Formats: sequence, structure tokens, C-alpha cells
Amino acid sequence: MSILSEFSLIQTYFEQFTTDRDDVELGIGDDCALLNAPTDQAIAVSIDTLVEGVHFFADVEPESLGHKSLAVGLSDLAAMGAEPAWFTLALTLPEIDDDWLKSFSNGLAKLAKEHNIQLVGGDTTEGPLTISIQVHGFVDQSQAMRRSNAKLGDMIYVSGCIGDAGAALNLHLQQLNDEQLDNDDKVYFQQRLECPTPRVSLGQDLLGLATAAIDISDGLLIDLAHILDKSGVGARLNLAKLPLSKSLAKINHKIAQTLALQSGDDYELCFIVPPQNFSEVEKRFKGQVTRIGMITDDNGIYYIDDNDKLIELTGTGYEHFTR
Amino acid sequence: MSILSEFSLIQTYFEQFTTDRDDVELGIGDDCALLNAPTDQAIAVSIDTLVEGVHFFADVEPESLGHKSLAVGLSDLAAMGAEPAWFTLALTLPEIDDDWLKSFSNGLAKLAKEHNIQLVGGDTTEGPLTISIQVHGFVDQSQAMRRSNAKLGDMIYVSGCIGDAGAALNLHLQQLNDEQLDNDDKVYFQQRLECPTPRVSLGQDLLGLATAAIDISDGLLIDLAHILDKSGVGARLNLAKLPLSKSLAKINHKIAQTLALQSGDDYELCFIVPPQNFSEVEKRFKGQVTRIGMITDDNGIYYIDDNDKLIELTGTGYEHFTR
Repeated sequence: MSILSEFSLIQTYFEQFTTDRDDVELGIGDDCALLNAPTDQAIAVSIDTLVEGVHFFADVEPESLGHKSLAVGLSDLAAMGAEPAWFTLALTLPEIDDDWLKSFSNGLAKLAKEHNIQLVGGDTTEGPLTISIQVHGFVDQSQAMRRSNAKLGDMIYVSGCIGDAGAALNLHLQQLNDEQLDNDDKVYFQQRLECPTPRVSLGQDLLGLATAAIDISDGLLIDLAHILDKSGVGARLNLAKLPLSKSLAKINHKIAQTLALQSGDDYELCFIVPPQNFSEVEKRFKGQVTRIGMITDDNGIYYIDDNDKLIELTGTGYEHFTR
Repeated sequence: MSILSEFSLIQTYFEQFTTDRDDVELGIGDDCALLNAPTDQAIAVSIDTLVEGVHFFADVEPESLGHKSLAVGLSDLAAMGAEPAWFTLALTLPEIDDDWLKSFSNGLAKLAKEHNIQLVGGDTTEGPLTISIQVHGFVDQSQAMRRSNAKLGDMIYVSGCIGDAGAALNLHLQQLNDEQLDNDDKVYFQQRLECPTPRVSLGQDLLGLATAAIDISDGLLIDLAHILDKSGVGARLNLAKLPLSKSLAKINHKIAQTLALQSGDDYELCFIVPPQNFSEVEKRFKGQVTRIGMITDDNGIYYIDDNDKLIELTGTGYEHFTR
């Protein structure tokens, strides 16, 4: 019932850009792609959907949207420590807009090339703008960073800075006082929201050093809680250690901390390191990662000061926040 | 920005139904699933999207929709001759409707169990009702039935009957005279449209016998044309041989043939058999498959009578039809 012929659009716009991997026996253009997985590694797969008006604004640049659609999947691979290999694209479009498709596919293809991940199949349908991308990567399953691996005494780290994408979102919704911010700060926040950098190489480099990881898509508290839930442990966080960008540090400190804790879309990694690897991680990834807390036997998430003393906040324990 | 927490819905409704395969190292609930592919086979993957108002009517039974969402993917695996293994589900929902989700997941889980295919991951988002499913299967890549393998002198077969789903669609749109049809016929057509049977075991049984195949999702002419395009060959079809169901045979013969040629959604297989395998295929799958024509060096699709004599129709050659 679709007006769009399966694959034809995808072929026109996407086939020319993709890399040509040896493990792709048959790519776009048949009933199925045929793929050869390595014999000594597991295949890591993840699927994510972005919906207009829910995950992005209607006025987003299509090139950024193409980038972000793949970035969120790459970020999931990063959180397992997997090496990107293949992806598929299910694209639902209200109409055929050549300029939009060209720009969207450019953003997608550029990031795909950077990570040597090949588009191997897809489906193009008519309907409200919706993008589902499934990514496939490879990882040694004994080293994969699962959410269930955190243990008492481990330390909690995050990569990069957090809260920036949340600042962009709240600026867009005019829910953030922007007096202290200049145009460069706003452009930076916007870039963080619309063109996140998946921490793919960091994820792979952490294999054997970090035992558990998650990417921060829903907000540090929610995402860390997934690790705690799966591992049956608690955590204590030092709010003063939360890594804030120079731009985010300009706004009211409480609001900046709240954004760092609760806002998502940064696609940084939150990962768990056992004691024997603290020094190696902090030496090897100096400037890239920050220790923000520790795994405990608490029931939930508590906050501590620089002397590891508990701080009473508005609430103790964690609950499910909405962004 | 979603009101729905990733995976949580899927876990509630879907986790309990799925089979528990040994090759799934890690299923739903982490950043990625971890899967172990067999070392001697290729992985066949395909992704399909169904959109409300485009691929199905808003009043469709959710249980049928759950069935069909997976059936279209299984049908792609069947067309490669692949054995189903894993699938992922990206579900976009306008609201959380428990009854709908229960019924949808029942339909999906029942078909999944039947084919020993396990749900290994997914994403649940808020938005207009859209279902993307990616299926993964295994196939010996030297035997996989690719669209590019048809050769001069091969014969063209289809499984089952074709045109039934198109009859249901046209009845629904009141574009078909239903005078000759009783209620059983209409129920049968409806069933064929809403609950198609993917020819998974037939696809696997055809390995080594058929060289090329496609599932009939867009209509015999369009789908066969994909094989011809990829193989650089033409075809001659004997319209009198098109397998019509008893119900479809009741309506005007020209209309029935047109539906069999041009309407999609039957999810039967169209497959190509080389001369040395004609007798084996016809003996082994007697009653299940029908020889409808031959591969030629014509430029497009022509029609022939029972004496292989060309018939002049309204058009010669094929073009892209819309359903």
C-alpha cells in the first residue's frame, strides 16, 4: 500500500556513500543482507527510533538528524565496548523531498564512514517522519561491559561533560535563563544536542578495564540506576565532581548540576571500574573521564561531599525521573 | 524526550513469551543484545516497517497486526532460505493501551514461538503507530537464494495461491464486486491479508533446488521484476497457470488474474528453478507450488498460452505498478 518502492530510495541516496566491508557478502537490494560474523566474537545489536516532535524538533537540520540517528546506535555499541560493523535503516517519510534526503543521508554517511560501519539494508515507507536504525558490532563476550557487572567497591566514572544537551533543550523551550551565556555557548549546547559524539573508541579501549557501562541517553540518574538495578547494588555520587563544560558552568550552579544529573541526550558513557584498574583508567584516559562516585550496598543513590560524608538532599534514593 | 522508558514496555509484555535460544548470550535489557552466530553460516538480516493508515487499517485486530509485523520479516528470511533466529522490535505508540499491547504481543509471540525466533531487543517510543521489526536468520551463503541467480532456461514457480490479500484490500475499499462471494470467502481473504503465512520451511527446503527467490509483498509482477533486473534476464508467464484460490476463482476471471499479477501482501514465494531440478521440485512440493512461466532473454515480462505462444496483452514488457 506504500507509494514508495522498498529500498529504491535508500539505494539512490545511501548506496554510494557506504563503506565496502569484506564481511558483507550481500548488501542492500535483496530480501535479506548476508553477513559474515567473526567466529571468536559475539554480535552486539541495538535498535533505536527517533520520532519527529518527540526526539527532535521539526526544524532540525536534516544533516544533523542523519548524524544523530546513527550516533545513538553507535553510542549503544560504545557502551558494550563493541566495534561497529553494520547497520540497517527503516525510514518513514511523509513525502519525498530530495533536498532533505540528500542532506540527511550526507550526515548519516559521514558518521558511518568515520566508524567503518556499513549500511546493509533498510525499508522506506510513507508516514510520519520516523527513523529506526539497528546497529551491529562485534565484541568479545567475556569482556563486554554489561549492566549487571557492577560490584561493591567499584568506582563510577563518566566520559566528557554532561548536562549540555539538556541545556540546549531547555534553552530551546525557553526554560533556562540565558543571561550569562554568549552565542558560542548556545551554539556549543546546540551542537551537543543535535550532533552528539558517540564514545566508540573509548568504549573499546575500556574493555578489560571497566566491567559495566551504559550510555547516558536518558540522564545520569536514570541510566546509572539501570546498572544498579541489574547489578543489585547502590551508589554514592559526589555532585561536586560532576564534569560540567565551561559553558554549563556559567549558569546557576544548582541548575547546572540538575541538568548533569537528570537530562539526557549527551551520549557520554557512565562506566564502572574495579579497584585494581582505577590507576590505569585515570592515567590512560586523563582529561577524558572523571570519577564521580562509588558503588555501595546502599538502597539507591546517595550524595556525598569531598570527604565521602553523606549529604542530605531533597530526596534520598533514586526514582524514575522524566526528562 | 520520550514519556516511555526504553525497553520497559517491551519487557513487560514481550519478555515472558519469547523462546530461550542457546545462541542468545544476552537478550533484552542492556545497551545491546549479545548474540552468537554459527561459524559455518551467514547471517541473513532484513528490516520492515508497518505504518498505520499505510500498511494496515486503524481498525485491524492488534493480534493480527502482531502476527503480520513479524510475518513480513519471516517471509524475507524464507525468500533467502534462511532459518529464523532472532528479532528486534522498534514500536512507536501514540499511547499506552494495555489491552492493545497484550493482544499485539500475543499475536507476535505466538508466531515467534512457532518459528523458534527470539526477541532480543527493542525500543519503545511515543508517536504515530509504527512498527519496525528486524529479523535475523542463518543460511549457507553458497546456497542462499539471491535475486541475481536466475538464468536463461530456468522455470518460474510460486507457492500457494496469489491475489487473495489484494481481494481483501479491494473488498475493504469497496472496489470489488462481491456478488459471487459468500461470507466464508470474505473471511478467507481477510485472513490472508491480515494473517499471512510466511513460507519459512518451504524456503529452507528449496535450498539447493531453487537458485533465486523473492517473497511476493508488492505483487508478482513487481517482485518478479526485481529478480529479472538483478539477473539481467526476462520472463514469459502463462496467465492460465496463475494459482488462484477457490474463493478468488469465483470472481470475474480477468480481475482475479489482475489481482494475482499486481496485488501484494500474499507473502508467497516466487522462485526460480534450473532445469536439472524441475522434476524434483514438482514431485517433492506437489500441491504446494505451481510452475507459472520461464526465464527468457526477453526485455521484460511477456505472456504466453499453454502452447508457449506469445499473447498480445494491453502492454508488453513490465513497468512499475502501484498497488
